[in-house]
Amino acid sequence: MTGAFIAIEGVDGSGKSGVVRHLIAALADRGHDVLGTREPGGTPQGEALRGLLLSGADDAWDPRAELLLMTAARVQHVARVVLPAVAAGRVVVSDRYAGSTLAYQGAGRGMAERMIRDLHAAMVDDLWPDLTLVLDLDPAIGLVRSRRRLAVDAIDEGRFESLDLPFHQRIRTAFLAQAAAAPDRHVVVDASGTPDAVQAAALAAVERFLKR
Amino acid sequence: MTGAFIAIEGVDGSGKSGVVRHLIAALADRGHDVLGTREPGGTPQGEALRGLLLSGADDAWDPRAELLLMTAARVQHVARVVLPAVAAGRVVVSDRYAGSTLAYQGAGRGMAERMIRDLHAAMVDDLWPDLTLVLDLDPAIGLVRSRRRLAVDAIDEGRFESLDLPFHQRIRTAFLAQAAAAPDRHVVVDASGTPDAVQAAALAAVERFLKR
Repeated sequence: MTGAFIAIEGVDGSGKSGVVRHLIAALADRGHDVLGTREPGGTPQGEALRGLLLSGADDAWDPRAELLLMTAARVQHVARVVLPAVAAGRVVVSDRYAGSTLAYQGAGRGMAERMIRDLHAAMVDDLWPDLTLVLDLDPAIGLVRSRRRLAVDAIDEGRFESLDLPFHQRIRTAFLAQAAAAPDRHVVVDASGTPDAVQAAALAAVERFLKR
Repeated sequence: MTGAFIAIEGVDGSGKSGVVRHLIAALADRGHDVLGTREPGGTPQGEALRGLLLSGADDAWDPRAELLLMTAARVQHVARVVLPAVAAGRVVVSDRYAGSTLAYQGAGRGMAERMIRDLHAAMVDDLWPDLTLVLDLDPAIGLVRSRRRLAVDAIDEGRFESLDLPFHQRIRTAFLAQAAAAPDRHVVVDASGTPDAVQAAALAAVERFLKR
């Protein structure tokens, strides 16, 4: 079976984690050798950077430093997890990838898209997922869901959730623009329904891709 | 009094820390408002990255990730410590700066100098110190000194010291090449003498610079 690299993107609260869990279980049931992973993270070094990046005050990191750390975590992830797994025929499902860097550090923080793309090309040899699912949701709804989850689970990863709604609206627009610019490797999934409905739609999109 | 940004560079064991301490004390005695700092580090975020970078196995970080983290620490350091201090008329003395990135990640790890310089330009607006002292020493001597210090002080920052002698010889050559390429803002100090002699020579070079 040939490997594949699939990324799940979307605004905070769009249901990415649930979709990733569902995809991992359903694809494994169907006989795929699946690896679930996430960014920033997915390696011991990347998880350490995740801890530095996602907790603390919003102004803890200069936007340029934030971009560099996200990219550093990605270098480790691509070289040590994603590429070896795909080469071994595994289906890698990643909760976020470089589309999030374009959206959050680019559209969100205002850093130049050209610089982010150049850095991506230099640092991970311009690797993009075979398929990216964009879970599309009004961020006003997503933030309510996301803040509830952070409170219930007592997770200290709320640095981005603390930003205002216009910031998150720019994120949504950026994801949709990425999908429109490269439709052959993106599928936009309506994430406004129930978790079951969103997860079923995501799985259907992945199955269509894997069968083609 | 006008501010200045001074960096102290050199191979491991060349006596940088002692020179920095001596410069801070001697310049303060002479009425300067001095700030001693270091890279990677100098900010809470940079010190956290320093911990990740300098401890652990040599292969813990991909060379590209290492370059990104060094640069991220520098972004925080320049924006939040170096530039405000210089603007306030202080003399900033930093134990290492971007010359070390060119030497270690470039000449040492083999990353392209052009890419490192482009990244430096994009991330810290191509800021270089007003004066860089290169403490020049045969790395075979430096490593003996450096490993002794790590053992005596029980410091877990030996990731670079664990590399072989040819690596450190490339570092030395790179520092000398940087000084030769920009002689107006570098002074090479012979670091083979006693700590007192090296520190006196370093202070004399800084005083000549500050008086000009």
